[in-house]
Amino acid sequence: MPQLGLLHGRAWATLLGQLRQSPGALCLRAVHSHSQGQSPLQVSEAVLTSQLKPHQEKSNIIIKTPKGTRDLGPQQMVVREKILDTVVSCFKRHGAKGLDTPAFELKEMLTEKYGEDSGLIYDLKDQGGELLSLRYDLTVPFARYLAMNKLKKMKRYHVGKVWRRESPTIAQGRYREFCQCDFDIAGQFDPMIPDAECLKIICEILNGLQLGDFLIKVNDRRVLDGMFAVCGVPESKFRAICSSIDKLDKISWKDVRHEMVAKKGLAPEVADRIGDYVQCHGGVSLVEEMFQDPRISQNKQALEGLGDLKLLFEYLTLFGIAGKISFDLSLARGLDYYTGVIYEAVLLQTPAQPEEEPLNLGSVAAGGRYDGLVGMFDPNGHNVPCVGLSIGVERIFSIMEHRMKTSSEKIRTTETQVFVATPQKNFLQERLKLIAELWDAGIKAELLYKNNPKLLTQLHYCENMGIPLAVIIGEQELKEGVIKLRSVPSREEVAIKRENLVAEIQKRLSES
Amino acid sequence: MPQLGLLHGRAWATLLGQLRQSPGALCLRAVHSHSQGQSPLQVSEAVLTSQLKPHQEKSNIIIKTPKGTRDLGPQQMVVREKILDTVVSCFKRHGAKGLDTPAFELKEMLTEKYGEDSGLIYDLKDQGGELLSLRYDLTVPFARYLAMNKLKKMKRYHVGKVWRRESPTIAQGRYREFCQCDFDIAGQFDPMIPDAECLKIICEILNGLQLGDFLIKVNDRRVLDGMFAVCGVPESKFRAICSSIDKLDKISWKDVRHEMVAKKGLAPEVADRIGDYVQCHGGVSLVEEMFQDPRISQNKQALEGLGDLKLLFEYLTLFGIAGKISFDLSLARGLDYYTGVIYEAVLLQTPAQPEEEPLNLGSVAAGGRYDGLVGMFDPNGHNVPCVGLSIGVERIFSIMEHRMKTSSEKIRTTETQVFVATPQKNFLQERLKLIAELWDAGIKAELLYKNNPKLLTQLHYCENMGIPLAVIIGEQELKEGVIKLRSVPSREEVAIKRENLVAEIQKRLSES
Repeated sequence: MPQLGLLHGRAWATLLGQLRQSPGALCLRAVHSHSQGQSPLQVSEAVLTSQLKPHQEKSNIIIKTPKGTRDLGPQQMVVREKILDTVVSCFKRHGAKGLDTPAFELKEMLTEKYGEDSGLIYDLKDQGGELLSLRYDLTVPFARYLAMNKLKKMKRYHVGKVWRRESPTIAQGRYREFCQCDFDIAGQFDPMIPDAECLKIICEILNGLQLGDFLIKVNDRRVLDGMFAVCGVPESKFRAICSSIDKLDKISWKDVRHEMVAKKGLAPEVADRIGDYVQCHGGVSLVEEMFQDPRISQNKQALEGLGDLKLLFEYLTLFGIAGKISFDLSLARGLDYYTGVIYEAVLLQTPAQPEEEPLNLGSVAAGGRYDGLVGMFDPNGHNVPCVGLSIGVERIFSIMEHRMKTSSEKIRTTETQVFVATPQKNFLQERLKLIAELWDAGIKAELLYKNNPKLLTQLHYCENMGIPLAVIIGEQELKEGVIKLRSVPSREEVAIKRENLVAEIQKRLSES
Repeated sequence: MPQLGLLHGRAWATLLGQLRQSPGALCLRAVHSHSQGQSPLQVSEAVLTSQLKPHQEKSNIIIKTPKGTRDLGPQQMVVREKILDTVVSCFKRHGAKGLDTPAFELKEMLTEKYGEDSGLIYDLKDQGGELLSLRYDLTVPFARYLAMNKLKKMKRYHVGKVWRRESPTIAQGRYREFCQCDFDIAGQFDPMIPDAECLKIICEILNGLQLGDFLIKVNDRRVLDGMFAVCGVPESKFRAICSSIDKLDKISWKDVRHEMVAKKGLAPEVADRIGDYVQCHGGVSLVEEMFQDPRISQNKQALEGLGDLKLLFEYLTLFGIAGKISFDLSLARGLDYYTGVIYEAVLLQTPAQPEEEPLNLGSVAAGGRYDGLVGMFDPNGHNVPCVGLSIGVERIFSIMEHRMKTSSEKIRTTETQVFVATPQKNFLQERLKLIAELWDAGIKAELLYKNNPKLLTQLHYCENMGIPLAVIIGEQELKEGVIKLRSVPSREEVAIKRENLVAEIQKRLSES
């Protein structure tokens, strides 16, 4: 059996095939495999022979998480909780209510909502009963919820996982399972007020997370469609061309042009006219410019979009964030359901700390207006206008994790405040009684699960885990009715009367 | 088309079939259907004709969530957040680290872990690539995580959804998608210390949630297996008989006995011997009694289990919770992977408030020791002993929701602190500037998304939503450089200098 080291994906697959065929062999190596995609994907894998039932035929199993997914260990959970806290408290600051929907929906709820992306939906196996699919985003379930409950307005947030069968590029923070944080405002309101609030929220969150400088690109589907129309794109190709334009942040204009002409059958001169427009980006002055554009100004839809963008910029100025916003005619957004303003926040490539390498992370937040989606669920086609945003937690997470790794600061993965220790043998009973008192008083406390641990081991544990206080009980303390309270960092100890211990601990914790 | 009212499941299905067949018909009714199961399942459904693409053939779609799943609306989210807060803060109090794993695992990770329940696992469709299944619990993914990362000890909590294709009985809080809150201690430690802590945690959580009186049934798989052995059950039938015994809280002994004899081929006299034992339950004295039992005392495994239970009771007494624990020989737990102590908490049927109807909710928390599960993933079969617990959030939720509905207390679904209002027309710009100031100061604030809302409408909104403060800006205030600050409940208003507004609001909020 060869020693497994760093293998290319293909070599690894071949070897694995061989292993699978060798009957009953037991073999294990920790393997770092390179995925065949653009970026290296390091997964700790182990090939093993199932041990469970000796009478059964043994089979080789790789212990790993499914492709494009990962576990979040304790340190990562601390980072994710910090991100979610910032995001959710911002959503609550803007008056949103909570909502949760199932991880899967009836398959038909998701059909015809995502355009070219529909092939990326995970379906569940037909095990008898309904045909189900894992949700692809939180927006369609929200629209389904509104239609099902006949709600005409709602401001809600939703934090949850979504699943997409994309080619995972882990280095860019793209996974097949990822967490989305959505905020949406549904209802018929005066134009652009909710839309402006969505952009304000993105700014508050990105500022709050201290991710460095960022820019929010803004466009409008009606401006895009108007532009397509005046450039000569047939209406039946609007969405397909939109999908191509959406790739401009990942591939060059040349490649996008090729896709539009060769694959989507667009006339080359039409593509070139589009090419002129999609280079345009700027502030509110570009909106004014487009109003004067001889072709665009002939299109009613485009003018409506531009009118709304002008109003939007007025509100963004009042919110003090206009400087963060760029009207960008190349912004298209992949999803089919947008009908008005669309936006996407990108981090500017100057890292927050000089020693950090810049990471290309694509958009970290995005959204837009989708006035037709609820109507797709409503039997009479009654629409509820909606606008919303989604925070790309995974990509933000990649940055924060990267920062964490390059920082020397030690991250605590527990919140334990007090450790219960003893210097003596046969003191488990006293430790158990004491720690129960602390727990019952709401104090976060731990002890070692040993009958007779060494004092040094116990104090070491406190220091390793960053636990600030230790309480020590021994023969002497028991006799005198006191407990020794030790500050772990300073190593100072004082004897406290047992009946005052909880109060003293709470006093110390509130001071720190 | 008949008017649809309350229809039985079968009638509804027939009608639906008719609707599905009528080509292109557009029809909608809100329907409350009764499921065919034991308990009524009220689902708001709507039959509709898809509106999206006029050129496509129209199909009838029922707008609903998948069978056995539900949305959690804002009020329900408030209740769930309260439960999760209590649970997670208890887990943190006991020094647990966070962990998250993907919603799905490689299918082979879940095989042979759940015994007779394996048929309830949701598989994903084979769309090319790996074969995947939705996780069935959080325990197996934890064991997989430990083995994959070669961790020998870890105290972690995990809150997440799991999926089981069970017959949903909604009235009992049983769903196909539900949330579990797990706490587990992995590692080789001195006996029964972590096990006792798990029981302490269950007590703290059930007390913290104020669910009324409860009891934790405790048993040990070794005692069960020993009992089976001395009763004459062949070893190959231990797990199957265990599954039958596990049903004793749902069906009668007569039915369980019938299953064991008729379906599982147990000799009637063996079944009867088991019948004698499973009626036994009591405190630590029953442990002593079993030590003396002429048959049980002949079995080495059973004696080991009894010895541990005795030690466990000693620790539970030190924790002050022995009174809540009942040694119960009928407790079996359905899952295959338990190897030692097992436990299950049930609420006693005296409701917390006299006007409440008693609900039969089965177990609200459960767990046990599983020393062999990690070894099933480890290539060399190296084990990591584990013990843990799972809180049944859904069932607790049913109780809390029921209590909420019968209570007159109004639950706020938003946390908005300040509402920004104006008595005048054309003040949108000033409102937007003002609210941005509040948001930027971290104050939770809302306004109406209208250019010219009526003052009464605005103040009504505050009262309806329970927002405690309103700030009012008009011509007069703008001229004088002040803002009117209104206490919504008392309707008292004072003028505050604009530069002092944020500080004054923060002062008022900190006082309330």
